Amino acid sequence: MNVPEKMKAAVLFDWNDVRVVERPVPSPGADEVLIKVESCSICGGDVKIITRGMLKQPPMGDFIIGHEYAGIIVKKGSSVDEFNIGDRVTVEVHKGCGRCKNCLDGKQTACLNYGNKEKGHIANGFTTNGGFAEYAVNHVNTVSLIPDNISFDEATMITTIGTPLFGISRNGGFIVGDSVLVIGPGSIGLMAVQCAKALGAGKVILAGTRKERLDLGKKLGAEYTVNVREEDAIAYVKSLTGGHGADLVLIASGTTDAFQLALRTVRKGGDITILAHFEDPVTIDVGLAVQNMNNIFTIRGEGRQCVHRGLELMREGKVSGKEIITHSFKLDQIKEAFDVFMGRKEGAIKVVVHP
Amino acid sequence: MNVPEKMKAAVLFDWNDVRVVERPVPSPGADEVLIKVESCSICGGDVKIITRGMLKQPPMGDFIIGHEYAGIIVKKGSSVDEFNIGDRVTVEVHKGCGRCKNCLDGKQTACLNYGNKEKGHIANGFTTNGGFAEYAVNHVNTVSLIPDNISFDEATMITTIGTPLFGISRNGGFIVGDSVLVIGPGSIGLMAVQCAKALGAGKVILAGTRKERLDLGKKLGAEYTVNVREEDAIAYVKSLTGGHGADLVLIASGTTDAFQLALRTVRKGGDITILAHFEDPVTIDVGLAVQNMNNIFTIRGEGRQCVHRGLELMREGKVSGKEIITHSFKLDQIKEAFDVFMGRKEGAIKVVVHP
Amino acid sequence: MNVPEKMKAAVLFDWNDVRVVERPVPSPGADEVLIKVESCSICGGDVKIITRGMLKQPPMGDFIIGHEYAGIIVKKGSSVDEFNIGDRVTVEVHKGCGRCKNCLDGKQTACLNYGNKEKGHIANGFTTNGGFAEYAVNHVNTVSLIPDNISFDEATMITTIGTPLFGISRNGGFIVGDSVLVIGPGSIGLMAVQCAKALGAGKVILAGTRKERLDLGKKLGAEYTVNVREEDAIAYVKSLTGGHGADLVLIASGTTDAFQLALRTVRKGGDITILAHFEDPVTIDVGLAVQNMNNIFTIRGEGRQCVHRGLELMREGKVSGKEIITHSFKLDQIKEAFDVFMGRKEGAIKVVVHP
Amino acid sequence: MNVPEKMKAAVLFDWNDVRVVERPVPSPGADEVLIKVESCSICGGDVKIITRGMLKQPPMGDFIIGHEYAGIIVKKGSSVDEFNIGDRVTVEVHKGCGRCKNCLDGKQTACLNYGNKEKGHIANGFTTNGGFAEYAVNHVNTVSLIPDNISFDEATMITTIGTPLFGISRNGGFIVGDSVLVIGPGSIGLMAVQCAKALGAGKVILAGTRKERLDLGKKLGAEYTVNVREEDAIAYVKSLTGGHGADLVLIASGTTDAFQLALRTVRKGGDITILAHFEDPVTIDVGLAVQNMNNIFTIRGEGRQCVHRGLELMREGKVSGKEIITHSFKLDQIKEAFDVFMGRKEGAIKVVVHP
Repeated sequence: MNVPEKMKAAVLFDWNDVRVVERPVPSPGADEVLIKVESCSICGGDVKIITRGMLKQPPMGDFIIGHEYAGIIVKKGSSVDEFNIGDRVTVEVHKGCGRCKNCLDGKQTACLNYGNKEKGHIANGFTTNGGFAEYAVNHVNTVSLIPDNISFDEATMITTIGTPLFGISRNGGFIVGDSVLVIGPGSIGLMAVQCAKALGAGKVILAGTRKERLDLGKKLGAEYTVNVREEDAIAYVKSLTGGHGADLVLIASGTTDAFQLALRTVRKGGDITILAHFEDPVTIDVGLAVQNMNNIFTIRGEGRQCVHRGLELMREGKVSGKEIITHSFKLDQIKEAFDVFMGRKEGAIKVVVHP
Repeated sequence: MNVPEKMKAAVLFDWNDVRVVERPVPSPGADEVLIKVESCSICGGDVKIITRGMLKQPPMGDFIIGHEYAGIIVKKGSSVDEFNIGDRVTVEVHKGCGRCKNCLDGKQTACLNYGNKEKGHIANGFTTNGGFAEYAVNHVNTVSLIPDNISFDEATMITTIGTPLFGISRNGGFIVGDSVLVIGPGSIGLMAVQCAKALGAGKVILAGTRKERLDLGKKLGAEYTVNVREEDAIAYVKSLTGGHGADLVLIASGTTDAFQLALRTVRKGGDITILAHFEDPVTIDVGLAVQNMNNIFTIRGEGRQCVHRGLELMREGKVSGKEIITHSFKLDQIKEAFDVFMGRKEGAIKVVVHP
Repeated sequence: MNVPEKMKAAVLFDWNDVRVVERPVPSPGADEVLIKVESCSICGGDVKIITRGMLKQPPMGDFIIGHEYAGIIVKKGSSVDEFNIGDRVTVEVHKGCGRCKNCLDGKQTACLNYGNKEKGHIANGFTTNGGFAEYAVNHVNTVSLIPDNISFDEATMITTIGTPLFGISRNGGFIVGDSVLVIGPGSIGLMAVQCAKALGAGKVILAGTRKERLDLGKKLGAEYTVNVREEDAIAYVKSLTGGHGADLVLIASGTTDAFQLALRTVRKGGDITILAHFEDPVTIDVGLAVQNMNNIFTIRGEGRQCVHRGLELMREGKVSGKEIITHSFKLDQIKEAFDVFMGRKEGAIKVVVHP
Repeated sequence: MNVPEKMKAAVLFDWNDVRVVERPVPSPGADEVLIKVESCSICGGDVKIITRGMLKQPPMGDFIIGHEYAGIIVKKGSSVDEFNIGDRVTVEVHKGCGRCKNCLDGKQTACLNYGNKEKGHIANGFTTNGGFAEYAVNHVNTVSLIPDNISFDEATMITTIGTPLFGISRNGGFIVGDSVLVIGPGSIGLMAVQCAKALGAGKVILAGTRKERLDLGKKLGAEYTVNVREEDAIAYVKSLTGGHGADLVLIASGTTDAFQLALRTVRKGGDITILAHFEDPVTIDVGLAVQNMNNIFTIRGEGRQCVHRGLELMREGKVSGKEIITHSFKLDQIKEAFDVFMGRKEGAIKVVVHP
């Protein structure tokens, strides 16, 4: 395909200072592809990156941000036979070094050489350039084919699906018939509801504080919802679960309240998995977890090939990203896009940008 | 409820000699319930029992057969608070002794005290009386509530669902997005297809020899079917799976051919689970499994609480037993019922009997 | 064997009021044995029971305390063929109901019918009478044969071995070659050190605050010890583990400090298991666990048949209880025994009582 | 270090025609090290390679064989900070491509790009040049530090340890206290005995046909041995395991007899793991495995970082390779070395070659 030498890209120049500027189109290495980006969505991680910075991020003035993107392969490296020019693809963030203890154990998202590009680690849009640009380069490990019936916009949601799927896999993932409580109806929580149903969960309950989000959750498959500001959520969950509590609780809100609610609504012998980031310390009754023999699982990113798994669910219509995408902008409007996303303006959940 | 003292029951008097006779209605022990049987279906196990006999089965003239039944609780023992009189329930076979190494490890279907009733083991319809009768007694461990939207007939299929679900759980059960090949479109195989889809499997392929069964499999969710007599099943499965083979192969036909096909269609690093009984020795290229690092899992019965799990899938309409039930008879017609089932007459798959 | 009608037993009459009085010798049920108690040791759980009380404990004036005991079988119920009269045996606490979701899943120590004797649950010395007495009755599920080369005193330590073994099993238990940090050199921590070595762990590091306990830990197999009051434990553990932290951290001290140390010394992708009880809420940087993808496992009691497993280790001399037993008393001296244990007098770790 | 340009190497020129010739010393790539080989042992795989050939092996006249070697790092690539010049190291075979489904899942030894060097796969001594030479190049993923107290000769045994360790890990690897039957006292079987003990197994039983091997097994830790030609091995194993059979059976002999013995000696609910290669089809009663709910696990190579794990066991003296090394030769004597190994001359088990 015809690839230009220059492209437009959103570069971080200083905190909160993202500018669309001209940059050279990058070249793929032997194991890489060049993607013409069609859609790139904004994630909470991007906000952190532009407001406070994250570990090992590229220097100001160089760093093209964006990690949830989809597009078309226009060029590929010499060893790439997994994909063809013209393939519609979406991406995930983590390419592990492939040589540390965690990578060798299938835990690439916890690579011990994070940010060490020489040793082979790449986190697209975190430690290397990403997708708020006309073109982006990706290692084959982070690329997946998009099924024909899925749009580029929706395909950018795949990390948002991969994360809760990976979370559900952490206690084994055989949750068929189990009751599942999801705490926090953000984009991850709403996807978690859909994923739990898609894996055959029994009762799926969604807890939150905002009516419109809970209603959306209901539309997406939560059989039961509870507004923790208005109802006794503990009593409600127990009443739905024979008095015992949920078999699995997914924490999709990084707060003490969410964590405490999890400890009080999980079944004795049941499991808790954390899908959220926790910025601050929490004060929790960990003794409850011990007394009730509850394990607490965590995730980082979208491991266990959950992006590929999620695409199959999308293909079959079992999980949808459409309802979660509320706004779209041109690349040149990226500041406005961030404003809407960060301010949760007009009920914004997911905001996509089209280069 | 009003319970009579006598009932009609199908008793095995000699090989192939099942007679409906009058028997006393049994009384439930402290941890048991008395069920008024509404429907009881015939399983391949029943055929083995009446034609050749199985380990530890009760004496001729005493043994009331039948293990796939559903009905209404009419009486209960002193410790039973899990159920109420009037509850619509279905049953599973295995109540472990609760004291052997396997039972303590959650493997009740492999109880080391099989058939030892004094130590607490019961296999309803195998080592103790079963459900081709107006009434039957069950330990609470083997009883499950039937969701309101499920008929008694369909509820008798729950063991047929629990078995493949348990099978799928054996390699962990996190099969979302994975390709699954089911070999053998009998009742277990057809349920396996539905269960795999209900757990989010990606491509589900069904292999068999009879067109009508394969067509039914397609109706029940198999995206792809292959008639091994007419096509090169190995090439077909490889073509659907990027040349690598299926991530999981479920053997639902107890033959050498099925086993060999599994070894040749499973992905390197993929898993094989046996859902079928094998009467005869098989000659297999086990070296292929070693070379390709394939584990071979087996199951016995419907462990890991898979009957409860399956009922949730049934409740949500994700798995259905209706299409598999082809015939129904009165208890007095039980010989005819067995004839139809054993002769696969008129396309018989599952045959139910109504006491 | 000749069994008298009356026996001496230590009964709890009021908080901190344990008196040795005469009681009838109990009779074993069909699935039970009567044990002539030779040795019973004091556990932290006993202290809680006599000072503040625990869930579902028997009434004051009735309750014979004690749950870590060993002795000789002198009588057995009708169904018991697992043991013979004269067998030297030791016991564990939990006999699950055998009918709840957790028991059926092999998680008896998290039985959902805790304290409900009618439904079959027993926790010896917690919800039913225990072993500070001349005789005690036990369900066969809680009884294990003592290898010939192990004394009754040492055999009372088996719960103290079973607990860390169960803890180690929670992340799978395949820790061969892994680095393990044990925080807290109490009796559980000291056993955890031995268990980790017996399972082939690589570097085993013990962290604590008291020199004599750390020295004992070294004697029992900890290759490295660190006094957290005197050294930078985080730096020390990192220096021993290539800068990455321990593969597995076992928390054997129920404090915020211990938990925080665990979060800061565990490898990215490594696991934390809690072996201690936590009475009070903890304030922890749970974000670290998320960032580093660390799961946090808990245990309750000695599941997964770990008492049986531990006895094999004891038999082979790989784990020893001898060094941990510091004092012994007659049953009549039980108050003195508790005084020594609770006051940690004369370096008391484990204190045994001989009825 | 001073590295010459030419070296001596054992090259395969035709079936059974291995010649020591002069070759250029290879150069390490960015992620590789150059090892001065001190010792290289002969494995059954080498015999297959020189007599019949294996998949994707290099052309006759080019191929330097040998995959079990140890030596000193004399040069390293630009990205290598895991090792230093002068480090004493040993190697394993498999470096996965790092990009296929299996590699991303931590199953490098089942890499789907086997033999595809451009995509990153290397199997030292199988698909690329190996260690019967003065120098060899290895990717860092296949290199491990040798503890100070282990000789180069013994360190070449590490694959022979890694294989059974990986095998034991396949059913979870928490075998503490379990009974283990090892069938086949070859080098893998003898190591399996040691590994099982090092992981805390209870009774370890070794079955075989040759008295001297069984005696060696006893010396290495098998508590019980049985000569299947002289005794009823099934009855013997049952008598040692309370009539139930072994909890885990490791098949270290690739024959129908070994497989059938495994099926008849494993406990109901117990596991079988295959450590051996099977050249020919086997005729087995697979129905037994189904009836007894036995899973059959397989391995390929030494995954799950078991070489690193094994080195820790070696360091602590829990597993030894010394007793298994029976002969050593100079590189120039490699034909003689193969003769002794292949003919099992003078009781040969492991034969090492010193370049």
